[in-house]
Amino acid sequence: MHEFELIKKYFSKLSSNNENSLNLNDDVFFDKTKNLIISVDTYVEGIHFINFKHPDLVIKKILRSSISDLICKGVKPKYYFISGSGNKKNFSKKNLKIISKSLKKEQNKYSIYLSGGDTVFSKKLSFTITSVGFSNKIVLRNKAKFNDDIYVTGNLGDSFIGLKVLQKKIKLNKKLMNYFKSKYFHPVLHKNITKKLLLFANTSIDLSDGLISDLEKMINKQKLSYKLYLERIPISNNLKKLIDLEIIDKISSVSCGDDYQILFTATPSKSRIISETSKSLGIKISKIGKICNFNQKSQIINEKNKKINVKNKGYFHKF
Amino acid sequence: MHEFELIKKYFSKLSSNNENSLNLNDDVFFDKTKNLIISVDTYVEGIHFINFKHPDLVIKKILRSSISDLICKGVKPKYYFISGSGNKKNFSKKNLKIISKSLKKEQNKYSIYLSGGDTVFSKKLSFTITSVGFSNKIVLRNKAKFNDDIYVTGNLGDSFIGLKVLQKKIKLNKKLMNYFKSKYFHPVLHKNITKKLLLFANTSIDLSDGLISDLEKMINKQKLSYKLYLERIPISNNLKKLIDLEIIDKISSVSCGDDYQILFTATPSKSRIISETSKSLGIKISKIGKICNFNQKSQIINEKNKKINVKNKGYFHKF
Repeated sequence: MHEFELIKKYFSKLSSNNENSLNLNDDVFFDKTKNLIISVDTYVEGIHFINFKHPDLVIKKILRSSISDLICKGVKPKYYFISGSGNKKNFSKKNLKIISKSLKKEQNKYSIYLSGGDTVFSKKLSFTITSVGFSNKIVLRNKAKFNDDIYVTGNLGDSFIGLKVLQKKIKLNKKLMNYFKSKYFHPVLHKNITKKLLLFANTSIDLSDGLISDLEKMINKQKLSYKLYLERIPISNNLKKLIDLEIIDKISSVSCGDDYQILFTATPSKSRIISETSKSLGIKISKIGKICNFNQKSQIINEKNKKINVKNKGYFHKF
Repeated sequence: MHEFELIKKYFSKLSSNNENSLNLNDDVFFDKTKNLIISVDTYVEGIHFINFKHPDLVIKKILRSSISDLICKGVKPKYYFISGSGNKKNFSKKNLKIISKSLKKEQNKYSIYLSGGDTVFSKKLSFTITSVGFSNKIVLRNKAKFNDDIYVTGNLGDSFIGLKVLQKKIKLNKKLMNYFKSKYFHPVLHKNITKKLLLFANTSIDLSDGLISDLEKMINKQKLSYKLYLERIPISNNLKKLIDLEIIDKISSVSCGDDYQILFTATPSKSRIISETSKSLGIKISKIGKICNFNQKSQIINEKNKKINVKNKGYFHKF
């Protein structure tokens, strides 16, 4: 059973008296009266990160992944809490020093503050990060409108190739391998777009599980479908090289998540303000599809105007 | 190195620009401008709970332990987030049903709401609970005053005996074993005293690690010492029986934590309001000692007016 089905089935009724929790059907909690937004995520070695050989890179990536939940909703993160479970080696003095230095850099970059947490002993290394922000308005899930355009920031797929390189499943020349590994370890969060999103996005999500999977999650309670144009899905020149060489096909490379780009929809009239925002902030924003009505089946159209099938819709935590 | 020494050494500077985090020297985070209080705790199988044979009891206990951090500071908890890492068996449908039912009861008892969280796959079972409350005032650590009386709610030590019974290290008659086991599994939180604490407590902490250890933690940044009277430390009649039979000595039984009673100090003039509060709420509150000046060494005085030595000051997470 998938994670969100489990949660929905057994726990959504526990939050039913509490309209702020969005019935656990969002990545964040929003208390409207207190303008408070909270996100909680757990990262386990071997699942969410490969190993702990580079504590600085791991910590940086999971922290960005956590605050990404807020940023994609139009909320500036302010505080974070880290709870780490691990063994003596994981939390050696050397590693703690490295972690602390890495966190310091992230704090400066995103203007966030470590506000607490916990460290406990466990044979298995994992971290839970709680991110907190304040806003009187957020971009919610399941608020897409019929005929909305679908947009995505940045490029997709590079991080997944980086993972495959690190897992030694893809071998490339050194320069390319370093490029993709770096994309895996350093997701770029568009912190400057945060407040702008509230001006044009009807609904949004960050791409952690994969484009198709997250798109479907974003509108899972709505009687709507989507049409995506494969050609318009933004990728880097380096990923294009791999696709041209048929090392990987495009739809697979962008369906595996870990991109932490922002997916959102907006009414067509917002097209101009979105392209102006893109230019003024220097952030690539691509129009990749349309929200359609429910009678139509969701589809992905390739460059030959043919419907294509997606086997792997993205990453699920399987129990 | 002890948990709080680790945190202090490597991470306190990360919160130094953020006066709200109390420099990580408290169990809670307090944002004065937002009236926001947050506590984050992680609980690992084999360390913080013995096993997962009774998921309902484990979940109940760790949730109470988490909101206890807020209650002891004079803050009513409102929201909680649970992040669970575990295997298929831990999160079987049967267990999820039991956990959900147990949480429902706790929600009703303490007027709190599940507001989010995460479930991930891991070989090792652990939970991180984030508790959130709102208040414009809280009882802080390290605010004891010279000559303050030291108070504690309820009885101490029963939970520790319950743990020893469950670990089969103490064998008693069935009735007594059930009594202590129940005390281990069901810590009683004094939710009604929450707001009253703000009226009389100068400083406070909940007893999770042990009376002596937590008392020293409560005033660890102050140039003060304490004097405790062993005779006045409140225990149950059942624990008294064990002490009389010399199965355990009193100071050991109350130094092992897991009591989740509230330890606080108050100026002597508050003595009357404290005893009135105790009566009106039906909550046992015992005056067990005094805050003394720094020149004097902290001491525990036994019934024969002799100083006693404490070897085990309480529970530390060792790395």
